[in-house]
Amino acid sequence: MIRHVVLLTWSEDATDKQKAALAAELAELPGRIPEIRSYKFGPDAGINPGNHHFGIVADFDNEADYLVYRDHPAHRELILGFITPILESRAAVQFTF
Amino acid sequence: MIRHVVLLTWSEDATDKQKAALAAELAELPGRIPEIRSYKFGPDAGINPGNHHFGIVADFDNEADYLVYRDHPAHRELILGFITPILESRAAVQFTF
Repeated sequence: MIRHVVLLTWSEDATDKQKAALAAELAELPGRIPEIRSYKFGPDAGINPGNHHFGIVADFDNEADYLVYRDHPAHRELILGFITPILESRAAVQFTF
Repeated sequence: MIRHVVLLTWSEDATDKQKAALAAELAELPGRIPEIRSYKFGPDAGINPGNHHFGIVADFDNEADYLVYRDHPAHRELILGFITPILESRAAVQFTF
């Protein structure tokens, strides 16, 4: 299995409406990209200071399936339409387990 | 459930031996902290440029159990002994799912 992890921070002018629209779109991705084995995401819970604002964790059977997801039009369109407009910074790792 | 995600970058002088020692210590944590429900970690697979170097994803039944982990002596000693000496930067999120 390979796990894709991405942590995001939002720009200061990102609105709650934009963040809610992103979460709604993310929830549709597992139905659009069958290679996804597990898909969990959400806003930071506010427990610790200095955190990023949003996390996404996606699991795949192997690297090839992750690449299908990475390059899938449904994923690219979500990034361009719902993440890029409110994005300040991004941290990511893919690791096998 | 709550998921704790942390992504790390290593300092330039971090050695393979130090990184291997960290991985070995991380593998012991689920046996030392029974509140951990799932614990996955590993070095970045090298698929994408610009990534962080290492990822850790830990799941807990609830926020209280995450806090037990966060503040557990076995975890704090691991951070001080094996992460801090090679750490350049850290990004983290806790989210419910």
